[in-house]
Amino acid sequence: MKLKVYADRLSQPVRAVIIFCEVNGIDYEEIKVDLANREHLTPEFAEINPMQQLPAIVHGSFKLFESHAILIYIASSFPGVADHWYPADVYKRSKIHSVLDWHHSNLRRGPTLSKTESFWLDDNRPFLLGQNQPSIADLILVCDIMQIKLVGETDWNRLLGPYKKVQQWIESTRNATNPHFDELHKVLKELKEKLQN
Amino acid sequence: MKLKVYADRLSQPVRAVIIFCEVNGIDYEEIKVDLANREHLTPEFAEINPMQQLPAIVHGSFKLFESHAILIYIASSFPGVADHWYPADVYKRSKIHSVLDWHHSNLRRGPTLSKTESFWLDDNRPFLLGQNQPSIADLILVCDIMQIKLVGETDWNRLLGPYKKVQQWIESTRNATNPHFDELHKVLKELKEKLQN
Repeated sequence: MKLKVYADRLSQPVRAVIIFCEVNGIDYEEIKVDLANREHLTPEFAEINPMQQLPAIVHGSFKLFESHAILIYIASSFPGVADHWYPADVYKRSKIHSVLDWHHSNLRRGPTLSKTESFWLDDNRPFLLGQNQPSIADLILVCDIMQIKLVGETDWNRLLGPYKKVQQWIESTRNATNPHFDELHKVLKELKEKLQN
Repeated sequence: MKLKVYADRLSQPVRAVIIFCEVNGIDYEEIKVDLANREHLTPEFAEINPMQQLPAIVHGSFKLFESHAILIYIASSFPGVADHWYPADVYKRSKIHSVLDWHHSNLRRGPTLSKTESFWLDDNRPFLLGQNQPSIADLILVCDIMQIKLVGETDWNRLLGPYKKVQQWIESTRNATNPHFDELHKVLKELKEKLQN
């Protein structure tokens, strides 16, 4: 019963889900749903996800959408996903829910960068909430912030410049999930080049 | 170690959390943070929740904000919360995450009503996702929809009119959580009267 991931790598939550599957050795199949060609709006895809958004998964007869829900499902139901991704401890787990929900309702990137720097990251630990290893919250937030790369290197440096802890944290998350992180973010570089030509 | 709930009943997620505590017999203390008086913006409250939003909880030394995270925390860590509120079954639980996340990113009420009617509610079961008893997702969504009452009975009837299943579901959620549901929603009636005078 292979996990099917409906995906377009141009979507940042799609990239988070794919990186998560790769890093954790999940046996999955990536099924391309081309957003630019409006394939997510077809009746066929509405059978997979009636809300017609990506990512979505099908696992046997079980269908699920919304990236946070998907990451929690995979972390909870596949053996071999290390505890730090979605800790069993109720306090740690609750804090991860809190970061994810907060991010969900604060998608403007300015406040996200500033609050992540001043509140979610501490001085001595590489990941959110004082963890020494990444959780699904690190992956979701970093993949979202990476989208800023699309506006170009100058703007990236200007926007990220004031946030030293955020910069280190992005690098830590990248290192913890490479080579998959770089592989999944190639699409941003390709799109930027396409937009410039 | 009594649970402290920082609350203003004018906030719909605050009402969901308080109703949940009441229905489940949680021993809690409600601490008023008056939004109209901007008490959530004080330095004192920033110590409780640095994001300066309601609801927030303190349980011993543990602090948490974001209503979904709070409901999951209470359901997971207090004995006596019935399983239907936040099922242990990974499939049921994942679907609840999916509804809550979807609602978080679709806060316009028109699509919420229409998708709830056509997709989240089925014909023969009173609650979301085909449950016979409510989950935290029912509580969050119904409390949000109830806010429409503020615009007046005529608009309520006009907006809700086309959605028969939604109307039944609101009534089922109200019945399953009364007298607390009505008690917590008094504040809407009072505010409406104040706004009209």
